[in-house]
Amino acid sequence: MTKLNEKEIIGIFANKLGISNLDDVALLDKGIVIKSDMLVASTDVPPGMEAWQIARKSVVSCTSDLAAKGVKPHAAVISLGIPNSYSAQRSNIEGLAKGFAIASKEFGVKIVGGDTNETGELVIDCSMIGFPVFKIPTRSGASPGDYVIVSGAFGFAPAGLAILLQQKAITAGNSIFRKRAVKSVLEPHPRQSFGLVTARYSSASIDSSDGLAVSLYELASQSKRVDIAVYRIPAVEGLDKFARENGYETDELVFHGGEEYEIVATIPPTKIKQAKAAARKAGVSLQVIGRVQRGSGSVFVRKKLLENRGYVHFDRR
Amino acid sequence: MTKLNEKEIIGIFANKLGISNLDDVALLDKGIVIKSDMLVASTDVPPGMEAWQIARKSVVSCTSDLAAKGVKPHAAVISLGIPNSYSAQRSNIEGLAKGFAIASKEFGVKIVGGDTNETGELVIDCSMIGFPVFKIPTRSGASPGDYVIVSGAFGFAPAGLAILLQQKAITAGNSIFRKRAVKSVLEPHPRQSFGLVTARYSSASIDSSDGLAVSLYELASQSKRVDIAVYRIPAVEGLDKFARENGYETDELVFHGGEEYEIVATIPPTKIKQAKAAARKAGVSLQVIGRVQRGSGSVFVRKKLLENRGYVHFDRR
Repeated sequence: MTKLNEKEIIGIFANKLGISNLDDVALLDKGIVIKSDMLVASTDVPPGMEAWQIARKSVVSCTSDLAAKGVKPHAAVISLGIPNSYSAQRSNIEGLAKGFAIASKEFGVKIVGGDTNETGELVIDCSMIGFPVFKIPTRSGASPGDYVIVSGAFGFAPAGLAILLQQKAITAGNSIFRKRAVKSVLEPHPRQSFGLVTARYSSASIDSSDGLAVSLYELASQSKRVDIAVYRIPAVEGLDKFARENGYETDELVFHGGEEYEIVATIPPTKIKQAKAAARKAGVSLQVIGRVQRGSGSVFVRKKLLENRGYVHFDRR
Repeated sequence: MTKLNEKEIIGIFANKLGISNLDDVALLDKGIVIKSDMLVASTDVPPGMEAWQIARKSVVSCTSDLAAKGVKPHAAVISLGIPNSYSAQRSNIEGLAKGFAIASKEFGVKIVGGDTNETGELVIDCSMIGFPVFKIPTRSGASPGDYVIVSGAFGFAPAGLAILLQQKAITAGNSIFRKRAVKSVLEPHPRQSFGLVTARYSSASIDSSDGLAVSLYELASQSKRVDIAVYRIPAVEGLDKFARENGYETDELVFHGGEEYEIVATIPPTKIKQAKAAARKAGVSLQVIGRVQRGSGSVFVRKKLLENRGYVHFDRR
């Protein structure tokens, strides 16, 4: 027996339910958009993450997904699965509650209800609805000539995760780099302003939480007859040094890390100037990293074929 | 250290988030209602339940909650936590997908997206949005003089659970009773038609999935200065015999069972005739079991104080 992978599982559900994009946001009656995301402790909670950060993180994924679609969050419901040992400490529950309150305020989303259960490990499911500010860019609208843009540089999260997991004795002498890397894991920052500003100019858009390579491949393969050519590698400052000192490849950290809540989008040449101006006005970073070209769903980085490979969740079980 | 119970946990969250009813449905902008419910295998999946029944059941709770509020479901998203061992069998995943498709059709709710994860035990979270058909009865609107009504009789589910769990050698010679009892556990039936028909007449309403006693206490304690007096015990046919033969108390099964997806509501005397006529016309059962009276949040059954005690989830871990 071979275990089905996530893609196969999603395929079976999508097929049976007659939906094409089980893991993208869905647009419903009255312009409602809905998305859910489940946080599972053994794969999504690294060592050192406090209760309030866990709760906040469980709201980040949906917030980021909606942001990539130019959708302003309206309300969320939270389902909790809490182990007995966890709820034995009142401070854990108070920490979670504090984290939800922080997320609610920070992301502008009312948390209006929920459900509590007893589970073997901590599980938090967040479902969020919102309303599009302008239009919703799909994953499939990229055309040859479009610019490929990102909301920020990559690398902090995988570096931070390596530090937190202490997979090996990590040197991160630059304490500012270490701080920012660890913070990007413990308190990820979804790009709401960026998403709401750029969605109206984007032909396609996705968030990068599964890794930059996977996101680029999603856009390239779901759009018709295109490839993506990346000519600028969006690495955070200090990543080269961190990689060199600790035996990592910079490109690996940039393209095959994960849990980086940046937005990856494509913008037609006719709109790129406006988009850049709007981003500047809103005070958000918009970086061009490549172009869309005719092709068949592949992604190239400096003319070399990029591997379509995500990051592998750690497992603390 | 004392483990916090569910009420205390909900209290901490509700307090921190400034919401009064964390576990009731929430009415949002544009008349949207949202509710989420998490199914956890070790407590919500009895032996003998097939994959499609598990998936269907995970959609029943929200459907029932919305029904009790007179809300027609519109769409749902599903988050899945699947153990490795479970997804190793393709038939399990196909069974789940089939169950979601059945639920979608049966309850008139589009399943529009979801999220898949790896967990230690099977966890399914369903979040559903819908629109009220008329108005939304709260839990707090019961007034002295109102009739207390239910959508059907109680007892099949706890009897069925006893049979499935084989807690003791159960005698259920009457094979029709056994069949209906087991079926009510494996394929629970939320009262959608009843809820949509009666909501406009109800001063307060709730579903009975936590047990009839708990539901009655919710209505009595959240409404102002009222008690509930039950004078007719709504037991399913054959329950007395089943209880007698197997050493159970009928009242225990009726009031302190659980996972019975009936609706419990209160209807003012001025509207009870119309409500009965509407129920008759719609072909749904509406049974009066008692009255609301002045009081302080208590529930009496034939003048005896009822214990405010739900059913305890079994735990297969």
